[in-house]
Amino acid sequence: MASDLRSQEIKNPVDVAEYLFRRLYQAGVRSVHGLPGDYNLVALDYVPKTGLHWVGNCNELNAGYAADGYARVNGLAAIVTTFGVGELSAVNAIAGAYSEYVPIVHIVGCPSTTSQKDGMLLHHTLGNGDFTVFSKMSSQISCAVSLLNDQHEAATLIDNAIRECVLQSRPVYISLPTDIVQKKIDGDRLNTPLDLSYPPNEPEKEDYVVDVVLKYLHAAKNPVVLVDACAIRHRALQETHEFVEKSGIPVFVAPMGKGAIDETLPNYGGVYAGDGSNAGVRERVESSDLILSIGAIKSDFNTAGFTYRISQLNTIDFHSYAVRVRYSEYPGVRMNGVLKKVTEKFGKLNIEHGPKPNNDIPDDELKSPEPTITQAWFWPRLGQWLQEDDIVITETGTANFGIWETRFPAKVTAISQVLWGSIGYATGSCQGAALAAKEKGIKRTLLFTGDGSFQLTAQEVSTMIRNKLNPIIFVLCNNGYTIERYIHGWQDAYNDVQDWNYKDLPAAFGAKQSDVLTYRVESKKQVEELFLDEQFSSGDTKQLRFVEVVMPWDDAPQALKSTTEATAKRNAEA
Amino acid sequence: MASDLRSQEIKNPVDVAEYLFRRLYQAGVRSVHGLPGDYNLVALDYVPKTGLHWVGNCNELNAGYAADGYARVNGLAAIVTTFGVGELSAVNAIAGAYSEYVPIVHIVGCPSTTSQKDGMLLHHTLGNGDFTVFSKMSSQISCAVSLLNDQHEAATLIDNAIRECVLQSRPVYISLPTDIVQKKIDGDRLNTPLDLSYPPNEPEKEDYVVDVVLKYLHAAKNPVVLVDACAIRHRALQETHEFVEKSGIPVFVAPMGKGAIDETLPNYGGVYAGDGSNAGVRERVESSDLILSIGAIKSDFNTAGFTYRISQLNTIDFHSYAVRVRYSEYPGVRMNGVLKKVTEKFGKLNIEHGPKPNNDIPDDELKSPEPTITQAWFWPRLGQWLQEDDIVITETGTANFGIWETRFPAKVTAISQVLWGSIGYATGSCQGAALAAKEKGIKRTLLFTGDGSFQLTAQEVSTMIRNKLNPIIFVLCNNGYTIERYIHGWQDAYNDVQDWNYKDLPAAFGAKQSDVLTYRVESKKQVEELFLDEQFSSGDTKQLRFVEVVMPWDDAPQALKSTTEATAKRNAEA
Repeated sequence: MASDLRSQEIKNPVDVAEYLFRRLYQAGVRSVHGLPGDYNLVALDYVPKTGLHWVGNCNELNAGYAADGYARVNGLAAIVTTFGVGELSAVNAIAGAYSEYVPIVHIVGCPSTTSQKDGMLLHHTLGNGDFTVFSKMSSQISCAVSLLNDQHEAATLIDNAIRECVLQSRPVYISLPTDIVQKKIDGDRLNTPLDLSYPPNEPEKEDYVVDVVLKYLHAAKNPVVLVDACAIRHRALQETHEFVEKSGIPVFVAPMGKGAIDETLPNYGGVYAGDGSNAGVRERVESSDLILSIGAIKSDFNTAGFTYRISQLNTIDFHSYAVRVRYSEYPGVRMNGVLKKVTEKFGKLNIEHGPKPNNDIPDDELKSPEPTITQAWFWPRLGQWLQEDDIVITETGTANFGIWETRFPAKVTAISQVLWGSIGYATGSCQGAALAAKEKGIKRTLLFTGDGSFQLTAQEVSTMIRNKLNPIIFVLCNNGYTIERYIHGWQDAYNDVQDWNYKDLPAAFGAKQSDVLTYRVESKKQVEELFLDEQFSSGDTKQLRFVEVVMPWDDAPQALKSTTEATAKRNAEA
Repeated sequence: MASDLRSQEIKNPVDVAEYLFRRLYQAGVRSVHGLPGDYNLVALDYVPKTGLHWVGNCNELNAGYAADGYARVNGLAAIVTTFGVGELSAVNAIAGAYSEYVPIVHIVGCPSTTSQKDGMLLHHTLGNGDFTVFSKMSSQISCAVSLLNDQHEAATLIDNAIRECVLQSRPVYISLPTDIVQKKIDGDRLNTPLDLSYPPNEPEKEDYVVDVVLKYLHAAKNPVVLVDACAIRHRALQETHEFVEKSGIPVFVAPMGKGAIDETLPNYGGVYAGDGSNAGVRERVESSDLILSIGAIKSDFNTAGFTYRISQLNTIDFHSYAVRVRYSEYPGVRMNGVLKKVTEKFGKLNIEHGPKPNNDIPDDELKSPEPTITQAWFWPRLGQWLQEDDIVITETGTANFGIWETRFPAKVTAISQVLWGSIGYATGSCQGAALAAKEKGIKRTLLFTGDGSFQLTAQEVSTMIRNKLNPIIFVLCNNGYTIERYIHGWQDAYNDVQDWNYKDLPAAFGAKQSDVLTYRVESKKQVEELFLDEQFSSGDTKQLRFVEVVMPWDDAPQALKSTTEATAKRNAEA
């Protein structure tokens, strides 16, 4: 009763759940991923009410992956799960988003504050009366945790969570008890949109850093730029682009930075990853006397097993939280402002050109009479077929190493999970990415996954069908976990998977004949024909397209081979 | 080198991984669930080497559910996952096992101790150099955590983990770094099997409690026995059986205790769950002047929403950790010894008979001309078809409430997840249960799952095919999350699911025509015919059998209706 009285004092009362979803809408979310569960049902009524689309995934892990893919295309995503069983199923996906800086708002419908206070023995609990266990687990993989146990704090906690999510580009956790969902709070607050912009650097400090950077830049004889994941995730792409385009300095991407740079630029040089680099790249980068490294994440799989040979004495690191020039650190200076000013001021520079990657098929592939689809042939050939604006999702395994050999057209968005590397991710992610693409008018979303990986999350193809999405799905059929084979267990049964009839799945998942086109290609010639097929290739084709690409079980991209060799060695290190 | 030298001093050296798997074998494990991942590959080599079977699941959550089902039939299960991505995917299943007292040894292959010490930026990490995050998360849902970072402690930590797992009947977590897998330890230790028996009660204390129990038992005019989940999970079934059979006291089961009692006993009275009880049960139990409650877990879904009307003044609670007589507690006295002595000593008792449940079809169902398969008709009809020794798995939803109306033949094992209630559990669990059944020579494993639930973990049917298992799978097709509808959102889209062609899945999952039999039944008559079909019903049929059972979307067992009503009310409570 107290809360009702109070609500009469509020001029423009709004329910807590409505406030939450309206804030998400204001921040750019248009679709909400997740599954219903009895502790979130009433909250779900507010999804359509606030103009949002409910996706309705097949399970929570997949929903989490999908939210990740959606966030990478859209800028922000939301997922709703239920207490205990639902949220824990999503934990791996949320941890991946934390690891890879992807902003997801995770809303967990939970038991009423009364039940929690009374420590009731409810379903979806551990039976010990402790209702904090799961939020504690999630706090390890969230940059903010907002437990909405009190309506009077709810708006502040919601605003704070969304702001942290966007600014830190990492998941946040919001628990929404069933009895709080419809509590009334001040709706006028919604008239002031959240400020989601980065605070500017302190000007004097920023200018100081800019001068230091310029000093080294002018002194450099053959500088290069190396762009990595955090340039994308911490939204420094525009500043990076302007600098790269105006300066003409050869620019390279790390594997996790793939897609950050317009690869049709004359100064785009290819993928640098130490021993796994594109042809000619390693020599050019490692002989440079100044590497402008933007948003680096130097993980094992992003560096072909820590095989960089770059000295910190030749490096300037640009980050979201600091700039580092050789060994001098400038904490609290965000890269964006510094790059902008450096672009304005750099003047004359020494430029020594780098390699020019292309999508030419390697010579021995051209000469080979074998019809088999090899990894060495497939990835550059794919590059010839890609279109501007494509979204290209590659699964951990042969695909996200193979894609190093594909030169993109302009404006391609690349999605993969090089650091977290959870197999199954790509198929879930494809659902979210394809949905965001549709909302944004982007025409083609392409998924490349191995058969082993696809089996983990296959049912998300059903969610794509249900949401009338039309991605083009390539399942690379090579009989199991090839990346694992290259590490250990070459022919061991544990690296095999059950042989599915993959392209029969869309129909089993309820796709009508008019909803889906299926294909199976076993030779280079068939791939060529497929790529020439208008209906298959068009961004305007309404059908989901599903292709089995048969490849040899023991073939892998060169970059995968060198990376896994390093991994096997490190695993054995005593 | 140090370790090699040391190994020469060991008379009978054995690798750490071999020691671990041999201990699991000794403790009764025959199959290991899980997925390969680069941090566990070398360890997996020891699975076949120690006589164990590698299952090879489609994903880790499913593998966790399968291990749970395997443990419920076999007594102990093991699952192997990889660091971060693998283990976190399994967390929900492990939490469920913790909640419901199921003994699973969770082995996580993790980066080498050297990499951990150096805080390397490896794949499958959060990128922050903290290698303890995931084991900390798992410590919340494990009764022991053994990090095998030092070979000299390894054997002790392994033994301790397995012992705790069995004795506490809850999951344990063992991390196995890649560089420890092949370290040599003392193999002679394996010649002494682990003592996995419960320590006996302190005799004087036990006798004291027995006397108190007998005093109240002799004074009682119409005692009843109520058996619940912990009687099964903490292995007091034999003592319970002997007491129930010898005494003739009317015996009832809570939903989570279903299967604990031979339901063909003349004194078996049915399911007691407050408002959700079988016909006549509520009156008999609640009018009793002494309820001997064995292994109770009084959760909401186990009590039809806390609708017991039993006074503690009329209750004796038998637990694994204590006995409680009215309000007098006897901590540290395990039920097993007390029950055994009470059975030996009880002498003459007052017995007032209870109801006799049967599998008669309710009158209005018999009279109804409707061909539709109703919940009220299906579950007792199923009871007529069940066979001795069947394993019956029911999913959270209509199935695990419907089964309250099924009277079992003797020796049926019932599996469901009434407390944790994670949908998707049952299909994964079925794989593990069917495998354990096969190993033990049990002929039929039956799964009853709803369509919405089935979609979460459908690909585990592939694992069943791969492992040549022959369960009988009933997918109850009623267009979505019916249990949710009864709580909130009767016709809301979020409770719908995509309409699959379920019975096409086994073939898509690679089953040959000779591996599987599929059916679709839409009327009572078709169910009758199916149940009469020899090939379908036989425990000797080698094929997996897959049935779509079409039921109305808005129908539910009575017990579900009353439970969800209470849930909806509590969710709204301010």
